Amino acid sequence: MDQIEERLLEEVADLHGVPEGAYNIRANGQMAGRNTTANIDIATKTDKPGIDIRIKPGTKHESVHIPVVLSASGLKEVVYNDFYIGDDADVVIVAGCGIHNCGVQDSEHDGIHRFFVGRNAKVKYVEKHYGEGEGTGKRILNPGTEVYMEENSLMEMEMVQIRGVDSTIRTNKAQLAAGAKLLVRERLLTHGDQTAESVYDVELNGDDSSADVVSRSVAKDRSRQVFKSNIIGNAKCSGHTECDAIIMDDAKIVAVPGLVADNIDAALIHEAAIGKIAGEQIIKLMTLGLTEEEAEAQIVNGFLK
Amino acid sequence: MDQIEERLLEEVADLHGVPEGAYNIRANGQMAGRNTTANIDIATKTDKPGIDIRIKPGTKHESVHIPVVLSASGLKEVVYNDFYIGDDADVVIVAGCGIHNCGVQDSEHDGIHRFFVGRNAKVKYVEKHYGEGEGTGKRILNPGTEVYMEENSLMEMEMVQIRGVDSTIRTNKAQLAAGAKLLVRERLLTHGDQTAESVYDVELNGDDSSADVVSRSVAKDRSRQVFKSNIIGNAKCSGHTECDAIIMDDAKIVAVPGLVADNIDAALIHEAAIGKIAGEQIIKLMTLGLTEEEAEAQIVNGFLK
Repeated sequence: MDQIEERLLEEVADLHGVPEGAYNIRANGQMAGRNTTANIDIATKTDKPGIDIRIKPGTKHESVHIPVVLSASGLKEVVYNDFYIGDDADVVIVAGCGIHNCGVQDSEHDGIHRFFVGRNAKVKYVEKHYGEGEGTGKRILNPGTEVYMEENSLMEMEMVQIRGVDSTIRTNKAQLAAGAKLLVRERLLTHGDQTAESVYDVELNGDDSSADVVSRSVAKDRSRQVFKSNIIGNAKCSGHTECDAIIMDDAKIVAVPGLVADNIDAALIHEAAIGKIAGEQIIKLMTLGLTEEEAEAQIVNGFLK
Repeated sequence: MDQIEERLLEEVADLHGVPEGAYNIRANGQMAGRNTTANIDIATKTDKPGIDIRIKPGTKHESVHIPVVLSASGLKEVVYNDFYIGDDADVVIVAGCGIHNCGVQDSEHDGIHRFFVGRNAKVKYVEKHYGEGEGTGKRILNPGTEVYMEENSLMEMEMVQIRGVDSTIRTNKAQLAAGAKLLVRERLLTHGDQTAESVYDVELNGDDSSADVVSRSVAKDRSRQVFKSNIIGNAKCSGHTECDAIIMDDAKIVAVPGLVADNIDAALIHEAAIGKIAGEQIIKLMTLGLTEEEAEAQIVNGFLK
């Protein structure tokens, strides 16, 4: 890998070189490295682009990294990655895609990730998206996740896209069996003329299942964001969804969290708030010696932490 | 008017007989009474069913009642009522429709109300819907409101539908100029196999305009409710929308409040919560000597107050 690719890898997977444990690195549409372990197998799909990741039941404290980097302009790909997580496993999965586009053609990576989470399994999933490059070609990412959670499983999803992606539609679905718990933390920053749409559809199908979907976003310049989060309560369950957004400059934000209660024992809550940074906050930081821009940046960073 | 019609009138307009001030009573598709005052004129439309209500600028502390009662089975009507409220007026408008259907045919009343609210005018609008009757014919009400608010006007809307309406789609639009303020309080109770959909689209177009749209609803039995409330901030404005719902029995509730911030100075918030009555609340009231049904009824009444 060249320097650009290494930097992208650092941005999306916090990796300085090759990770520990199982990994599959995809660079410009090709496999650039793979490692499997005794408990985690990675196999190339034979019917379409993508990989199958199989994690044995009871696997504890192991991790899988599957970063993707694109540095060639004009590359468009759709990749299907399926994760089979065995019962009682406890693992960390780090995905993410970095695009460096200095060309005139659009670059696009659409990663469709399916998770089959076994009983009592715990998964922490981190997905980071990042774009850079001075070219006029667009950097487009349309990630999708489908999460199927068996009894008493736990899934934490950290979905991050800070800067650089021109256009994204993020589609996320989850179905929860009894006792399963889903936590989603989305952080998003758009600028320039970027557009970002996030869609979450969470079905709470089993008794005592629960979901907490929280999005924090900042829209700068002329960027446009849409946040749609639906929580459907089909059992004795609890669901919470929240969208807090900071609007700046000439940006536009649409937030449409939806609740569907189809069971008397479903307890569902959502909240959303859109507003600009309070003037007092900026003034306070400016009295400490920061410029207005620095103060704004400080507040935005804190909000997205 | 017969006894049934008089009772309907009481339900929808709290009227025991003929109201004071200006009124237009519509019974079974016909005018059953009208009164105008020096400041408030009511004229039958010549191009379509309905009336034009013209309130002179500066009219203070007067009221207009325009109740509709339907006691004949199988009657279907669409009525267009336009309210022109002069600058600086301060008035109360009471609309509402009661349907008594003991027949086999569906009865339907669709009232489309437009409000042109002048500068600095204050309007309190009360709309109550009610249905009754042992017939198999349905009681259908599809009310619509369009509110155009000029600078610094105030409109309070109390939208009530407690029991008896089989099917309703309630569509409400508002556009606010600078300094205008809209307050909406919706209360809704559905039971049996009833369906109710409420749609609010509020555009905050002028600086310092504000809107507060709050819905409280109870869905019993197998009834279905949909609540959609969109607040669009196109200026330096503040908007809040809230939906609190109690779900009972096999009912289903969908809440989709939406926020659109198209201006950096728009501050928008929404909240929604759907859940059942807490068991402790019922037990507490039962220890005071109420039956479970009485305790539930007490809690529901308090919630919808």
